[in-house]
Amino acid sequence: MGLTSTEQVAVVGLGLIGGSLARALAEQGVDVRGYDASAVTCAQATAAGVRVASGIDELCAAAPQVVVLAVPLRAMRATAHEVARYLPATAVVTDVGSVKAAVRSAVAGAGLGDRYVGAHPMAGTEHSGFAASDPDLLVGARWAVTLDEDTCPDHLATVLRLVTGPLGGTAYVLTDDVHDEAAALVSHVPHVLATQLLNLVATAPISDVAVALAAGSFRDGTRVGRTDPRRTEAMVTENAPWVASALRVVLRDLEALVAALESNASTAEFFDRAQALRTSGDSRDVHPRASVTLGEPGWRDTLTSLGAAGRPVVGVDEAGERLVVH
Amino acid sequence: MGLTSTEQVAVVGLGLIGGSLARALAEQGVDVRGYDASAVTCAQATAAGVRVASGIDELCAAAPQVVVLAVPLRAMRATAHEVARYLPATAVVTDVGSVKAAVRSAVAGAGLGDRYVGAHPMAGTEHSGFAASDPDLLVGARWAVTLDEDTCPDHLATVLRLVTGPLGGTAYVLTDDVHDEAAALVSHVPHVLATQLLNLVATAPISDVAVALAAGSFRDGTRVGRTDPRRTEAMVTENAPWVASALRVVLRDLEALVAALESNASTAEFFDRAQALRTSGDSRDVHPRASVTLGEPGWRDTLTSLGAAGRPVVGVDEAGERLVVH
Repeated sequence: MGLTSTEQVAVVGLGLIGGSLARALAEQGVDVRGYDASAVTCAQATAAGVRVASGIDELCAAAPQVVVLAVPLRAMRATAHEVARYLPATAVVTDVGSVKAAVRSAVAGAGLGDRYVGAHPMAGTEHSGFAASDPDLLVGARWAVTLDEDTCPDHLATVLRLVTGPLGGTAYVLTDDVHDEAAALVSHVPHVLATQLLNLVATAPISDVAVALAAGSFRDGTRVGRTDPRRTEAMVTENAPWVASALRVVLRDLEALVAALESNASTAEFFDRAQALRTSGDSRDVHPRASVTLGEPGWRDTLTSLGAAGRPVVGVDEAGERLVVH
Repeated sequence: MGLTSTEQVAVVGLGLIGGSLARALAEQGVDVRGYDASAVTCAQATAAGVRVASGIDELCAAAPQVVVLAVPLRAMRATAHEVARYLPATAVVTDVGSVKAAVRSAVAGAGLGDRYVGAHPMAGTEHSGFAASDPDLLVGARWAVTLDEDTCPDHLATVLRLVTGPLGGTAYVLTDDVHDEAAALVSHVPHVLATQLLNLVATAPISDVAVALAAGSFRDGTRVGRTDPRRTEAMVTENAPWVASALRVVLRDLEALVAALESNASTAEFFDRAQALRTSGDSRDVHPRASVTLGEPGWRDTLTSLGAAGRPVVGVDEAGERLVVH
């Protein structure tokens, strides 16, 4: 199986990511329909050429092969339950949420766990809502695609073909835990530190002149802290265990730095610790291509090991069985 | 007094900031000469049209009215001593360093304290060296200009005219302490957190996939952590007391957040704390213009209070006596 241009994709939630996804798929000739709980959003999407259903019931009645849950994390559980009420038994359920274990739990709680494949595009902006959507936002993006020990190979192939086909992206196949730990490190902790930088300056007695003097390092360091604080809080709290664990490392390392600054001890090691990362550039991309056949012995471990090593799936064959890994 | 186009400026150190400064002043018709300890840098600067002296002795022998120390912080003390050996008694000494109390101490240690006015342009890039310089980098920049209780009004006027005249900038007049605390908040702590983010990912067991999945929030959050770690370390350690104090606040606040995440307590206040700053926009710029006459009773306190309130000097009259404050 897998996704061809004659199949249909339903997108529930037409905000920044869902809206961009629906528009990109429509531009690629995929039969895509969307729905959003906000009438204003539905009107904006319709005006932008997206085919919009009147409700989740109508969206599911059209018998899509793939349903993408693109609602905020806090709405995922209720939305999964409503989708489960109407969804044809053959459809694959995926999502675009920034944490994966929590979404899998929400989807499984609605009885859809056996046809769920997690997905998370590593793209976004500090804006939100359909008005900020852009059909090019997700084109060529890197995605994390997550599985567990029960994931059906056909369902995984369907999602991988959607990502590497009409969306032109690449897909790192991971377990939920590896995704969520990585997301904590490269997205959620950066959001927390950006928020903390804003908090630090907002509450300082000399806040006025500090804001006046703020230049590039503060602007860049706080950019994602300026997004909707509820969205940031949802990402962080839905991934609380991994974020807390990473922040414990940050606390330990900063405490050591402060102690060194206060005692005039050397700080060189702190500033040099990431030197390998600073200078690595793109030297990682030197692997020969690999091929993995879905269903072969150990295929799950093979795929998630490649994903954890930073090697993405870049293509799926017509039969939806052989994956090309970069 | 003050700086007119017939006066001469000497720039010691032709890296990113010194090189940009020399090129911008030359473009504005100011008689500017430069020097750098690196012969390669001198050759690059000469090729870019900067008039370069063969040494600090030759630079000072040309009798500049202003000498700008634009060397790295760690070289400031030795450079100030060499400048002091050759400098005409009438020249004003200023700098572009990112900390001010430490530079004042270095300059005073060389016997130049009575003609020093601190200056720090809030501009820069993650690059360094003359090759990265750009005559437009500093044009229109916001500067901090610092004084102490002994600063001569004429010397201050000279630096303010240079900043607000040919450089087209604005100048927040501050004490060294207010500058250094503000710089810790909006520049040095952001550099530390960017470095810590890189360290966190570089040392994580799942570093490979984390780097592979890193998107905008990680790229922006680590940008200034990718600069020369020695330069970052020098900024931070030269301003160690203020940086350590601000990092203690960061540690306290992050510890509280982690405790809340670990105990499933509310994190809303953390994410909302800077809401006023997020939504403030440019609403601060509504003051009527003020005028301050250098030398009038309490002029130092008046100027530094306006500066600390985020109100910059935007112009100096011909006589170098009346300042226009926005």
